[in-house]
Amino acid sequence: MTKARNVVVAQSGGPSPVINSSLQGVVETCREMPEKFGTVYAGWHGIEGVLKEELIDMSAQAVKEISLLRNTPAAGAIGTCRYKLKYGQEDYDRILEVLAAHDVGTFFYNGGNDSMDTANKVAILAKEKGIEIVSTGVPKTIDNDVGDSEFKLIDHTPGYGSVARYWALITQNANEENRGACPSDPVLVLQAMGRKIGFIPAAARLADPEREMPLQIYLRESDLTLEALAENVNARLKTDGRCIVVISEGFDVGELGESKDSFGHTQFSSSETTVAQVVVNYLNSKGLAARGSARGQVMGTDQRDTAIYASNVDLDEAYEVGRKAVLIAVEDGSGWMSTILREPGDSYAVRYDKVPLEEVANSERTFPKAWITDSRIDVTDDFVAYARPLIGDDWPNVPLVDGLQRFARIEMKFAGKKCKTYIPAGYRK
Amino acid sequence: MTKARNVVVAQSGGPSPVINSSLQGVVETCREMPEKFGTVYAGWHGIEGVLKEELIDMSAQAVKEISLLRNTPAAGAIGTCRYKLKYGQEDYDRILEVLAAHDVGTFFYNGGNDSMDTANKVAILAKEKGIEIVSTGVPKTIDNDVGDSEFKLIDHTPGYGSVARYWALITQNANEENRGACPSDPVLVLQAMGRKIGFIPAAARLADPEREMPLQIYLRESDLTLEALAENVNARLKTDGRCIVVISEGFDVGELGESKDSFGHTQFSSSETTVAQVVVNYLNSKGLAARGSARGQVMGTDQRDTAIYASNVDLDEAYEVGRKAVLIAVEDGSGWMSTILREPGDSYAVRYDKVPLEEVANSERTFPKAWITDSRIDVTDDFVAYARPLIGDDWPNVPLVDGLQRFARIEMKFAGKKCKTYIPAGYRK
Repeated sequence: MTKARNVVVAQSGGPSPVINSSLQGVVETCREMPEKFGTVYAGWHGIEGVLKEELIDMSAQAVKEISLLRNTPAAGAIGTCRYKLKYGQEDYDRILEVLAAHDVGTFFYNGGNDSMDTANKVAILAKEKGIEIVSTGVPKTIDNDVGDSEFKLIDHTPGYGSVARYWALITQNANEENRGACPSDPVLVLQAMGRKIGFIPAAARLADPEREMPLQIYLRESDLTLEALAENVNARLKTDGRCIVVISEGFDVGELGESKDSFGHTQFSSSETTVAQVVVNYLNSKGLAARGSARGQVMGTDQRDTAIYASNVDLDEAYEVGRKAVLIAVEDGSGWMSTILREPGDSYAVRYDKVPLEEVANSERTFPKAWITDSRIDVTDDFVAYARPLIGDDWPNVPLVDGLQRFARIEMKFAGKKCKTYIPAGYRK
Repeated sequence: MTKARNVVVAQSGGPSPVINSSLQGVVETCREMPEKFGTVYAGWHGIEGVLKEELIDMSAQAVKEISLLRNTPAAGAIGTCRYKLKYGQEDYDRILEVLAAHDVGTFFYNGGNDSMDTANKVAILAKEKGIEIVSTGVPKTIDNDVGDSEFKLIDHTPGYGSVARYWALITQNANEENRGACPSDPVLVLQAMGRKIGFIPAAARLADPEREMPLQIYLRESDLTLEALAENVNARLKTDGRCIVVISEGFDVGELGESKDSFGHTQFSSSETTVAQVVVNYLNSKGLAARGSARGQVMGTDQRDTAIYASNVDLDEAYEVGRKAVLIAVEDGSGWMSTILREPGDSYAVRYDKVPLEEVANSERTFPKAWITDSRIDVTDDFVAYARPLIGDDWPNVPLVDGLQRFARIEMKFAGKKCKTYIPAGYRK
């Protein structure tokens, strides 16, 4: 019997409250099959860790710590990165070199569209070179923008359900705040993540499916001007004396002094100003149809790193797509992404399946136009029906020890180096 | 037997996650003593509701809804305001007129220093005029700035323990985020509330009492320049590759285009820019000693309206100071504030007592200089020993129904009007 070959799992892009649950699914499922899988390594900070040969030995971690990954948010356990690989560059050769040096037979890559593209290219290149490596994708993005607009490749991505729950619950809190403090603070502007796609701000509607709150939702796709926004807000102030504005960080308010990452994506949290600030300043300078001022807040990464707002449904599904990726790798070989598809019918149920990495890499999801109301400042009941099951029903069980959250502690036990030192191509002067 | 006279309870200033727990304490304790107290009314939006004779009948609310106040954050239940009463003005006469018209024998005012001053003036004026009204204060402020710097008038104010817990737990989450994403986002700037006093940002230290995180805390009182901040951050980047900056909204970075409320207090959430934004822009323009950018977030009112970060210790104590205020009103008469005093000894214990409103109104608390470390970017173990017990050990029990938080629903049943219509003096043209 030949020795089971090793595994590398790595993550890319922005983290989520459930990304570690997928990691747990991969690690625990590989552990269940010692005849199929040897040591499981994790790339420390994603593909950068593979390039630099910084591979954390996940098989050497305590079982308890792996199980604690479930309620450990964000990507502190094994890290992530935003490094852009260029196809044809030596970076890809280096990945294959490192994987081969550590006798890696399976590579799991957890991320969004860009990551599925990378996983696909690793699969193609390995095949071209006759190297036996199974490359499998695990979907993740809080933006819910992986896959197609018809929801046939994937119904929703792990991570989205939790950020949707974050927005449902903080909008409830914000409503108590705004209702209570409106004599001096009649307008509360909350900026949501989502560069290009409106699934995150749309989730604020889950806080109030009956539409009892004076809530206005401005998606990037709403395509409204600041003037129109101010008119809407003032109309609501005249009827309700208060207004809650949930607005996408990518809503077009003109120049923000944008900062860009290596993919050319705008990083709104690092830009010179924010949409929320521009809106607050605009409203306060034009004057409100109520006493007091508009005030704003920008939660930023809190949306994707908050353990207690994670959805149990999302945590379970994130685990299962990690597990499914391992089963696909065993049964179907290279070039697939595990996926979540919704079963037809009134009650919420999903099945886990596989789709070709290539199809995902070349797809682009948009927010369904039919889910934006005619007013352009709300989303429809169809959106609510789609998103409501994803936030689950209960609080997750985030363990506390001495009053603090007990997160997984991954020991930095690295595989011994077998390759020459390498500086990733994008990091050279 | 004479008919028991009625009660008015009202709130002022910024809300907290536990302000409704004090309200519950007042309402439930009054209900226990029907021989002492008649109907309990709440001023809708604080003293503005008293001036406008908008008095919610709290005695007519379902018992269940009153009990749900415990885990209902912020001030949506009965509202708050930032209205500034001027002593000697007709506003004070109006308050006494409305209270007399509704046969109110006891007035409870929940708030910070300004509110204790108001409660004191109501007590004095009623006495001068020979009107029998017992005026009693209930302390509240997330800033922990009510009382004296020696902690003899009050050890800590209800509200602070919960915002401290918020900062302990979100700093833990932020550390997972920053550790995971540091290859592209090495610096995470988190802006904390606290105009003038550093108790809120200081609480971030509770996340990491062993000082394992690359965490720097900038209080208003740190008295450091932006240049010094950048030097500190870059020094940490050189050793750790990442840095978390928790900074007070009132940290001096120069002009912010400040907006002011009616008390002349700066409203940082309504100003033209924020400390976090200025710091992010400064760091990114000067350049970091690591790859990537600084990014910032401004949670704003989330700090004071988040149900699930409320501290159980704080919730219990907030209830008890509300209850104690009622007992003081019965036993000791007018002119007192209920208070929390810490018992000596190693294990945390408090007793509830009373202090004269006048002493509180004229006191001012500062953050103990001895609790700021020599580096000026950390707080000492003595601060940790003071603050740690206040955040409690467990998650609060925030009830969920159909996935959403079930907050108290106070019916807007108002007392019938008995006085002429009145426009508060500060709101006249």
